[in-house]
Amino acid sequence: MLYGHQTWVFNSKPVIISSAAVGGPFEANGNLSEDFDILHEDMWLGQESFEKAEKKLLEQAAELAIDKANIKKEDVTFFTSGDLMNQIISSSFAARTLGIPFLGVYGACSSSMEGLALASLIIDSKNANYIVAAASSHNGSSEKQYRYPTEYGGQKPPYAQWTVTGAGAALVAQEGSGPKVKCATIGRVIDMGLSDPFNMGAAMAPAAVDTIEAHFRDLHIKPSHYDVIATGDLGSVGHQIAGDLLNKHGLEIPPEIFTDCGILIYKKDQPVFAGGSGCACSATVTYGHFMNRMKKGEIKRMLIVATGALLSPLSYQQKESIPCIAHAVSIEME
Amino acid sequence: MLYGHQTWVFNSKPVIISSAAVGGPFEANGNLSEDFDILHEDMWLGQESFEKAEKKLLEQAAELAIDKANIKKEDVTFFTSGDLMNQIISSSFAARTLGIPFLGVYGACSSSMEGLALASLIIDSKNANYIVAAASSHNGSSEKQYRYPTEYGGQKPPYAQWTVTGAGAALVAQEGSGPKVKCATIGRVIDMGLSDPFNMGAAMAPAAVDTIEAHFRDLHIKPSHYDVIATGDLGSVGHQIAGDLLNKHGLEIPPEIFTDCGILIYKKDQPVFAGGSGCACSATVTYGHFMNRMKKGEIKRMLIVATGALLSPLSYQQKESIPCIAHAVSIEME
Repeated sequence: MLYGHQTWVFNSKPVIISSAAVGGPFEANGNLSEDFDILHEDMWLGQESFEKAEKKLLEQAAELAIDKANIKKEDVTFFTSGDLMNQIISSSFAARTLGIPFLGVYGACSSSMEGLALASLIIDSKNANYIVAAASSHNGSSEKQYRYPTEYGGQKPPYAQWTVTGAGAALVAQEGSGPKVKCATIGRVIDMGLSDPFNMGAAMAPAAVDTIEAHFRDLHIKPSHYDVIATGDLGSVGHQIAGDLLNKHGLEIPPEIFTDCGILIYKKDQPVFAGGSGCACSATVTYGHFMNRMKKGEIKRMLIVATGALLSPLSYQQKESIPCIAHAVSIEME
Repeated sequence: MLYGHQTWVFNSKPVIISSAAVGGPFEANGNLSEDFDILHEDMWLGQESFEKAEKKLLEQAAELAIDKANIKKEDVTFFTSGDLMNQIISSSFAARTLGIPFLGVYGACSSSMEGLALASLIIDSKNANYIVAAASSHNGSSEKQYRYPTEYGGQKPPYAQWTVTGAGAALVAQEGSGPKVKCATIGRVIDMGLSDPFNMGAAMAPAAVDTIEAHFRDLHIKPSHYDVIATGDLGSVGHQIAGDLLNKHGLEIPPEIFTDCGILIYKKDQPVFAGGSGCACSATVTYGHFMNRMKKGEIKRMLIVATGALLSPLSYQQKESIPCIAHAVSIEME
């Protein structure tokens, strides 16, 4: 059911019956290493390219989520996934391996929650029995495509972010036990004219704010409804800006509940500049860390606001600014 | 409602209350020029890059569909779109211009029907009032990204296809007059090991066949249910292969109803090799030509099977074969 202008409320409360998070060596040394199901020491996962390694991460996350739910791959109605690679090859090639009817999505790092929102809507409307919603990113494949090959050792400004190597997957079902997807707010594209591709956090912050405001406006609820409101990958710079903008607009989120997946994932002494980014940032933190905290009873209601910078290297070269988007999904443990 | 394994039946019958097709100079000289709403003589549309021209095509198609329906842009709940550009920048940048909450999809040239299928499901489940589902492609931007800049004048084999310069958009609503979206079959990724990026039609044919078979199996109907069954952009080579494969599998589609948007769009004497391709191929032929034929009473029931080749230039360089997909949407005039 549509609430307000852009929020879906899922009355049947689709359930995340299982989820999985897979990471790489940087994530293994990070703050949330215990929340990953699989951690790879090798950035290459034994593959011959970073791209093939990323595909493998995604396959592992999807397969593990299916295994944990104790269902068969053949029982999964749809696989929905997105990633940062040109033509989302990580997702498409993983869909080839899985053999499950596939819905490719793209919203840069917001793909994780775009996929979960659509999966929940499809489940809620009884148009599927089980859907795997997933997203991936890989530091090596992203740096190579968006900036420079990592082997160059190019220097970065302090507001740059570190693309997470990993994949997260959620298995959404009509019934079962687990956290329930309650609603989702689909974002508009917001572009405040920023054009520095190293400063994604600042570019994405206004999109996160726009979606958060729409969420509370559409539902007539207050931030205190949630135990956690987490942006996807604004990092320390973007998250600060988002908080300031929200305050300025009169929507204060208590700092103890307002956090960011990109800030949480790494340790302070890791050389990740302003924090984590990439589709796998919100995907692994949500489907690993936050799901575990929900199951332990530490969180009852959370809102994940995944943000995406919709630029391409070509749009940057053509001197375009960076259009950004954010999609928010609320998950509750009853 | 899910029928069989992968087909959605929309009981409320979402309506395409308006649609629009925009094309370039090659389309103006083509077979279906009268079915385009706007035809540009200039491949560049007065823009400084092919990419910006493609964005403009998409904006025009979306805005025109909205104008025709006599509603305001603010009344449109969501814009869903996909294209062939890296990070679907045509769609994302058009979404920035439109300011409508945005769901980015990617299924290469199947994006047109992936978007229409999702839009219809969202409308059917009352999660939106109006959705614009669109897709675009541009010959210049595609050739540059996937193959060589057109200025090189590189030679092509006879089974190559010509990327359509254009955009198509449909405005889907809960009620109103116009063709109704009855159901949609979401495809699996099929890869028969072909790896020649010039021979997309042959690579995509088995995916079209897989989805067509699933459609008839899930719904327990026969091809004779339809007046037209049109594949998206298999071209003459791929369409022949699809027909042969279907016959071999015992699912004969009468040749007088089985056609392909990529065969229909251009004249025989245009230098387009095996026919048209690109997201705009199925989008403009469906939202222009076929919609007009429905309104004239020439077609009552049709099935559009948009096919997509999910490769990237990088996956090709890494010696991967071409994973393909097809999504089918059935549209009926009551």
